[in-house]
Amino acid sequence: MPKPDPVLVVGTVAYDTVKTPFQDTERALGGSALYFSASASLFTDVHLVSVVGGDFDLNELNPLQERGVNLDGLHVEDDGQTFHWSGEYHYDMNTRTTHATDLNVLETFQPHVPEPAQATPLAFLANIDPTLQTLVLDQLTNQPLVAADTMNYWIENTPSELKNTLTRVDTLIINDEEARELANTPNLVEAMHRIQALGPDVITVKKGEHGSILMHQDEWFTAPAFLHADVTDPTGAGDAFAGGFMGTLASTDTITHQALRKATVYGTAAASIVIEDFGPRALLDATRDDLEQRAKDLARYAKFPPVGKPTPT
Amino acid sequence: MPKPDPVLVVGTVAYDTVKTPFQDTERALGGSALYFSASASLFTDVHLVSVVGGDFDLNELNPLQERGVNLDGLHVEDDGQTFHWSGEYHYDMNTRTTHATDLNVLETFQPHVPEPAQATPLAFLANIDPTLQTLVLDQLTNQPLVAADTMNYWIENTPSELKNTLTRVDTLIINDEEARELANTPNLVEAMHRIQALGPDVITVKKGEHGSILMHQDEWFTAPAFLHADVTDPTGAGDAFAGGFMGTLASTDTITHQALRKATVYGTAAASIVIEDFGPRALLDATRDDLEQRAKDLARYAKFPPVGKPTPT
Repeated sequence: MPKPDPVLVVGTVAYDTVKTPFQDTERALGGSALYFSASASLFTDVHLVSVVGGDFDLNELNPLQERGVNLDGLHVEDDGQTFHWSGEYHYDMNTRTTHATDLNVLETFQPHVPEPAQATPLAFLANIDPTLQTLVLDQLTNQPLVAADTMNYWIENTPSELKNTLTRVDTLIINDEEARELANTPNLVEAMHRIQALGPDVITVKKGEHGSILMHQDEWFTAPAFLHADVTDPTGAGDAFAGGFMGTLASTDTITHQALRKATVYGTAAASIVIEDFGPRALLDATRDDLEQRAKDLARYAKFPPVGKPTPT
Repeated sequence: MPKPDPVLVVGTVAYDTVKTPFQDTERALGGSALYFSASASLFTDVHLVSVVGGDFDLNELNPLQERGVNLDGLHVEDDGQTFHWSGEYHYDMNTRTTHATDLNVLETFQPHVPEPAQATPLAFLANIDPTLQTLVLDQLTNQPLVAADTMNYWIENTPSELKNTLTRVDTLIINDEEARELANTPNLVEAMHRIQALGPDVITVKKGEHGSILMHQDEWFTAPAFLHADVTDPTGAGDAFAGGFMGTLASTDTITHQALRKATVYGTAAASIVIEDFGPRALLDATRDDLEQRAKDLARYAKFPPVGKPTPT
């Protein structure tokens, strides 16, 4: 088996304060690039590009480094404070309210991709300012497969910059509310058609407890979420999904439709693990075998009986 | 191929006034028993038990009769008005607000199952007062397979009567909000466990555009919804689902897990057709072949790639 390609991620490393109807946590390790790395490093080596403040305890990243996450692209702004997000999940654990977004060192963040990472064959542009996303794209030398995420803030405030990013990426990984808002239609399938017309060949819509939908050219794949009776903290599920998705593609020679379905399944598996604890802990404790077991469970849920002709069951 | 068993349904026949963000309709044919019958009659003969007022145009039911729906159990209350529901769908077409529920002849409805229908091997108790549901159960002579639906009104106002019904049915077909409310937990999987503990062996939770989840003993099946880029009116989708579900089981000798998965798929197929037009029109125009094609489309969406061991894709 050939060694999988490394993956580049550009996004945030954060301290999160999270409240759920059941438990709370303060200053948990978080951020899109961190969750992505904790997930993708179960599959391959990762180059992380981000920024933290002088308050950040770099020792907290040791488990990531031990699993092959290269931190040469992590800039430490000694005089600044680390990005801090605070939010609260509602009764259904599927929707949330943001209480505070203290950008801190993110306000002046100019991502710089270290030279060895510039030739990476796969890159994930996590949810950051689309202007910074294109700044990263300008630094990549090897025509990589690029996936991006975004959020309502950029859809509402920097629509033309976001549309520029979309013309330059292969895959958009986005949640269902954002997809509807970006495409300005309540119908998710119509929204995905419209987003594809903006540029990306592949659209993956994450729907939390309802699973995800993959659109690749004119083919569709629906994946259920893992059937958890208990969720501790949904934070990071989307980035863990992206990490499993890109990590799976890192072992693929050509991006076939089948490979994208597989990437969706392992993205789902990784997301199902991270929500079992606060921060990236559950993912950092997980093994590749845990992911394989999750993927098998998901396949069992989703398996159709023979259909298509009126025979007795 | 042996002739499938007939199915009994007890529920409402209504005139509906429906507003969506895109189109409106007034006095469209509706009601749970009507939608169920339009769907189940694609699979087998149906006995319908319900009530309408003197204002109801019985000719509107001719297409159902032609498709094998027996109306001997439809009571016409000459001095009364037919049940009327009025509601409005929100921007996402997945949630709605009820504007009016004019019970009219339903207020004094006492369902009477005609003698030939009392021995039916399959019965669906649509969303009506749980006291009436048990009144129907008392009239059935042949220990049929019974599925029931309910709604938030009965969960909130007649909880003990509803729990009594649940001890006497095999299957509960319910939507996700109702499941969470009935089980008093935000987590849907936990809710289904709790509902199973109340009696039914099989729980099917309908999630609109997000598909459905089947729990049968300790096995789970997830079915996606059909990927519609355009929905005209979601009214009746749940009852059309139940009709396809029970209609499929009507051809089954023993209720295996595989048969329940198949029933879920054809329920989904029937629901996907009814939402393409107001009232039951689209279902009445549909053929069994249309359902088979939908089932094949759903199977294609849901098909997993091989997973479970770390091989290159």
